Amino acid sequence: MRLTKDQTDQYHEQGFLLLESLLDPQEVELLRAAFERDARIPGPQRVAEDGGTKVRAVYSSHQRQPEYAGLIRDPRILEPVRQLLTDDVYVYQFKINAKPPFGGDKWAWHQDFLAWRLADNLPAPRQVNIGVFLDDVTEFNGPVIFLPGSHANGLVSEGRSDSAKSAQHLDPDDISLSPQQLAAHVDRCGMTSPKGPAGSVVLFSPEIVHGSSPNMSPFARRLLIATYNDTANLPRPTGEPRPDYVVCRDTEPLRPLAAPFSRALSGVTA
Amino acid sequence: MRLTKDQTDQYHEQGFLLLESLLDPQEVELLRAAFERDARIPGPQRVAEDGGTKVRAVYSSHQRQPEYAGLIRDPRILEPVRQLLTDDVYVYQFKINAKPPFGGDKWAWHQDFLAWRLADNLPAPRQVNIGVFLDDVTEFNGPVIFLPGSHANGLVSEGRSDSAKSAQHLDPDDISLSPQQLAAHVDRCGMTSPKGPAGSVVLFSPEIVHGSSPNMSPFARRLLIATYNDTANLPRPTGEPRPDYVVCRDTEPLRPLAAPFSRALSGVTA
Repeated sequence: MRLTKDQTDQYHEQGFLLLESLLDPQEVELLRAAFERDARIPGPQRVAEDGGTKVRAVYSSHQRQPEYAGLIRDPRILEPVRQLLTDDVYVYQFKINAKPPFGGDKWAWHQDFLAWRLADNLPAPRQVNIGVFLDDVTEFNGPVIFLPGSHANGLVSEGRSDSAKSAQHLDPDDISLSPQQLAAHVDRCGMTSPKGPAGSVVLFSPEIVHGSSPNMSPFARRLLIATYNDTANLPRPTGEPRPDYVVCRDTEPLRPLAAPFSRALSGVTA
Repeated sequence: MRLTKDQTDQYHEQGFLLLESLLDPQEVELLRAAFERDARIPGPQRVAEDGGTKVRAVYSSHQRQPEYAGLIRDPRILEPVRQLLTDDVYVYQFKINAKPPFGGDKWAWHQDFLAWRLADNLPAPRQVNIGVFLDDVTEFNGPVIFLPGSHANGLVSEGRSDSAKSAQHLDPDDISLSPQQLAAHVDRCGMTSPKGPAGSVVLFSPEIVHGSSPNMSPFARRLLIATYNDTANLPRPTGEPRPDYVVCRDTEPLRPLAAPFSRALSGVTA
């Protein structure tokens, strides 16, 4: 699947592009079932809710579940990513967030690339993020909010804030925009949050300023975020690299499947 | 101004009614200026942000500012309230919340009447709330979220939760619905949040389940909430009554002005 000129223009101008209902309901069911399965596998890739036993997030499911190994190679997703970035891309990070009800995540406003540059010494913002809605996303259950066009001038600040708690640990607050920076950007860019039925996919820039709205609904809301990186732009960690489930080490260029992942499932290996 | 049959039906069925752009932009300016003025008056009625000097909320401005004394008697507001409730009403509580950016208020889901029954021994849910938007309300700056129709069966729980921190102090968490109660109500009622330009007014039931969405924008967002009570339904506090700026003691029935507050201003006394 190739994006139209209008679609690539929108991605480059706005810093994001929503593809509504890209996956069909049966495919969403397959992905949900794979997440339920994967969330039962113990290990550091599974992050529990504070003080709870419920799963808050699971990393690197594409390394364990064929549905997700297929999804990241699905032509409806991988071809647009290659079109926006370059032919040789791999998945740098893969995460499914169960976005628990009643808050949870803090809504620090940030740019992803600053985090990756600081944590992994990633050379350039040569990434495309995809967000796959595993549940309907509404204004009430924690949509991501973008400042459209805020990616266009690169990083707002170059380093972590002075109040950084630790040189080792990267707290979202350390890389968040100041209230003044945010106010100036909102004045110029406004705010928008892509919403849509389960199966919708949003592509977004690693430099777009975004925040996460809290989940006001009483139900968990699952969102998959995969980050594709240019294979010519590998991280160069100066110290101990972050674990493989956070920053994937399989940097072989991905090739698109011939068919949607749901039809190709039997032939896919993780 | 009288509500139509459709409007009163909607209020009774849904538990709320939005009157978009009821006040004009010049009137909104008058009200904002009066708030700025009132927010400079020191006293317990002025609530500061945690650890800050900024104003989070101001109570009982209608007792000090003629614009607000006029507003609560404005025929566009008082007549619909009387139509929904009874001819003899007074303002039980009046508050302007500056809804600071980046969170602030916790989004406990609750029913107002439970709080008033517990705190003030208010006999019956014979109130109408009005919310006046002093700024545009969008999905991003902290709209109130209603569960439509959730008022219809009265109070979900009859007392404060077992975890109540104190018998004296009423914490919003003490009166909030449990996650199970909320999930059941959202399943049945759904969620909705009235939005609109500054000058819009939302009327809502004291028994509707509602929560407050955090303000994701970098700008404060001012919302006025006034609660009208039936004069035949006065609170009967068993101990020390709450202060006059929180629970107003002037229970004289309000009479509608002959004209909008902005035109009647010169003739109004607080």
